[in-house]
Amino acid sequence: AVLLKTVPEARIIDITHEVAPQDTLEAAFIIETSWRWFPAGSIHLVVVDPGVGTSRRRLAIAAGGQWFIGPDNGVLSVALPDASRGIRGPASQYRAAPVALPQGIEAVEIDTGVMSLSRPTSATFEGRDVFAPAAAVIANGAEYAALGRSVDTMIAFQRLRAPSDAGEVYGRVIRVDHFGNLITDVRAEDAIPGSRIRIGDRELPLARTYGDADRPSGIIGSAGYLEIAVPNGSAATTLGAVKGAPVVCVTHFPSR
Amino acid sequence: AVLLKTVPEARIIDITHEVAPQDTLEAAFIIETSWRWFPAGSIHLVVVDPGVGTSRRRLAIAAGGQWFIGPDNGVLSVALPDASRGIRGPASQYRAAPVALPQGIEAVEIDTGVMSLSRPTSATFEGRDVFAPAAAVIANGAEYAALGRSVDTMIAFQRLRAPSDAGEVYGRVIRVDHFGNLITDVRAEDAIPGSRIRIGDRELPLARTYGDADRPSGIIGSAGYLEIAVPNGSAATTLGAVKGAPVVCVTHFPSR
Amino acid sequence: AVLLKTVPEARIIDITHEVAPQDTLEAAFIIETSWRWFPAGSIHLVVVDPGVGTSRRRLAIAAGGQWFIGPDNGVLSVALPDASRGIRGPASQYRAAPVALPQGIEAVEIDTGVMSLSRPTSATFEGRDVFAPAAAVIANGAEYAALGRSVDTMIAFQRLRAPSDAGEVYGRVIRVDHFGNLITDVRAEDAIPGSRIRIGDRELPLARTYGDADRPSGIIGSAGYLEIAVPNGSAATTLGAVKGAPVVCVTHFPSR
Repeated sequence: AVLLKTVPEARIIDITHEVAPQDTLEAAFIIETSWRWFPAGSIHLVVVDPGVGTSRRRLAIAAGGQWFIGPDNGVLSVALPDASRGIRGPASQYRAAPVALPQGIEAVEIDTGVMSLSRPTSATFEGRDVFAPAAAVIANGAEYAALGRSVDTMIAFQRLRAPSDAGEVYGRVIRVDHFGNLITDVRAEDAIPGSRIRIGDRELPLARTYGDADRPSGIIGSAGYLEIAVPNGSAATTLGAVKGAPVVCVTHFPSR
Repeated sequence: AVLLKTVPEARIIDITHEVAPQDTLEAAFIIETSWRWFPAGSIHLVVVDPGVGTSRRRLAIAAGGQWFIGPDNGVLSVALPDASRGIRGPASQYRAAPVALPQGIEAVEIDTGVMSLSRPTSATFEGRDVFAPAAAVIANGAEYAALGRSVDTMIAFQRLRAPSDAGEVYGRVIRVDHFGNLITDVRAEDAIPGSRIRIGDRELPLARTYGDADRPSGIIGSAGYLEIAVPNGSAATTLGAVKGAPVVCVTHFPSR
Repeated sequence: AVLLKTVPEARIIDITHEVAPQDTLEAAFIIETSWRWFPAGSIHLVVVDPGVGTSRRRLAIAAGGQWFIGPDNGVLSVALPDASRGIRGPASQYRAAPVALPQGIEAVEIDTGVMSLSRPTSATFEGRDVFAPAAAVIANGAEYAALGRSVDTMIAFQRLRAPSDAGEVYGRVIRVDHFGNLITDVRAEDAIPGSRIRIGDRELPLARTYGDADRPSGIIGSAGYLEIAVPNGSAATTLGAVKGAPVVCVTHFPSR
């Protein structure tokens, strides 16, 4: 509604309203797997915002020919290339932390004083009161700087790709989809054919498609990450696995 | 589909399809908290309709520069200012009843004989067969009277604001949102800073934001109503509260 | 996203994302009850696709002035008139099987080699990688044959209408809607006034509207099929019925 008030011709796509409450990491992954399919100039509103109403910053970032707008809590991590994230070791790999913006990524802190659409601003719904009006400003072709002052750091998750060591990739279940598939952060390029997948006390093969799998299997999902699926069933139910469960992709092949 | 058939350029926003079945009061609140964010001339289809197929009337109402279309069962209450609802005491405060339309609010009873799009009309889906075609007539710029004959009463909930007495506001939980927050009908202006919130056998403080709350708290939600929230959790689960549960906002401060 | 990349002016309607996983029969029914309400030239993407990544074909079918695009597994059954389906007896009535295309129905097998939008094609998400790009080709006005080579058979469910014998119609519950109503495949024209409905060990009357029903009843739903409803409640819960449960509509009236 707020967007259409000032940008009547805006095309609005609802990617999802089903991120688990407060799960900023899941949100970061969903946008990571979606943004590249959108036309150049698209504006992504990513509002999973447990800190709404506190002093956390609000950002608008230009990266890859698109825009990313949301709270500065890690949900916009996709704007940063992996290499710029300063790997800090496994203990912190799923924690969002401040990172310096690399060359070529521009970000502004949204100044709510210049947003005039939705006064008074509520303390609980900045999607409506700050982020959508900011998107409207960009959509109407305003200059970048109209939103606020430039910043040179942002909060990002250290990685959106599970780390590997000695032929094993250490990931976890990032989300459970509508079908009960377990989506992990193990990237396709790290799960080579022949890999075995460990979850709980099970070891599963890596299948090529859902149709090929005749039992619980790993599979490379459409977003380029390893998923665990059960043919015509729910992996979450069958394996009793939940979000956050460790998943190891074993890619080394012992000689006999 | 029915709208696009006759108004190909219509912009359609799905506010929600998740009103609890048959809950006309919840529907009335949702539209009350949404309509003002839409552009002038917007048409709101509000079809929660347990009496579909019976002789209940179908209305199109012009109010506040927007249109409200739906069954005459209380879901369109927002078209009426609070003051015109003839307060009838606590026992009936959540019951919808006939009210005379005040000056400035125009309503017509939709004549299904003039709707030609969707014959034959089904007995169960007037959203498709009557209300959407009526919206299409308005969207195409037809004169108001094209839909049917003018009426001077409608069914409305007595209030969309909890009543207060001697420093206590007597509300209840109107709906439970996706996060488990309990949305009440206590209006923001009745819940002054320092108020305490009673629900079940608990007494909760009133926090300013979700981020400020470090335990179960009342909070003023984005729609201008008191909500009860649990930081990073579900108030519905934590407090065991359900829709309809009484909530008292205590605003008087006993002297010591 | 993929559609908007090449057809920025496309109107996209999300009929549903809530088909039960892998339930091609439910998908076939939903599109059967929806397509006629759409404007001429509409393109229906029907992607319930348990065989994604296997050698099952992908079809684009022109029928009834509209387009139907999806996997060749029965979800596109609506493109075929009932009469052309070669009734094979009750045992197989809910199984999809190959059928010759009758005169007037044109179908092509989508050649993924000519889809250039979404390379590389994933093995799991052809809605994005094949079917949406195919819809974009049609939406942009390309010639029919641009998608691939013509075919003369398709996979279809034998019927989208329960068979009858000696005054009894033998159907079943095809889906359970948001309200807990049980939607069957008994067509409206087979459930004449006065019919009785058998489900489990219950026998229910046939009511005209939800409002008329004062107890569990059959009712003719808006899509032209028999539904079983409970006034202001859930038939699924009240009757303990699930998808696939047999439903008999008794239309003969024994003389006394």
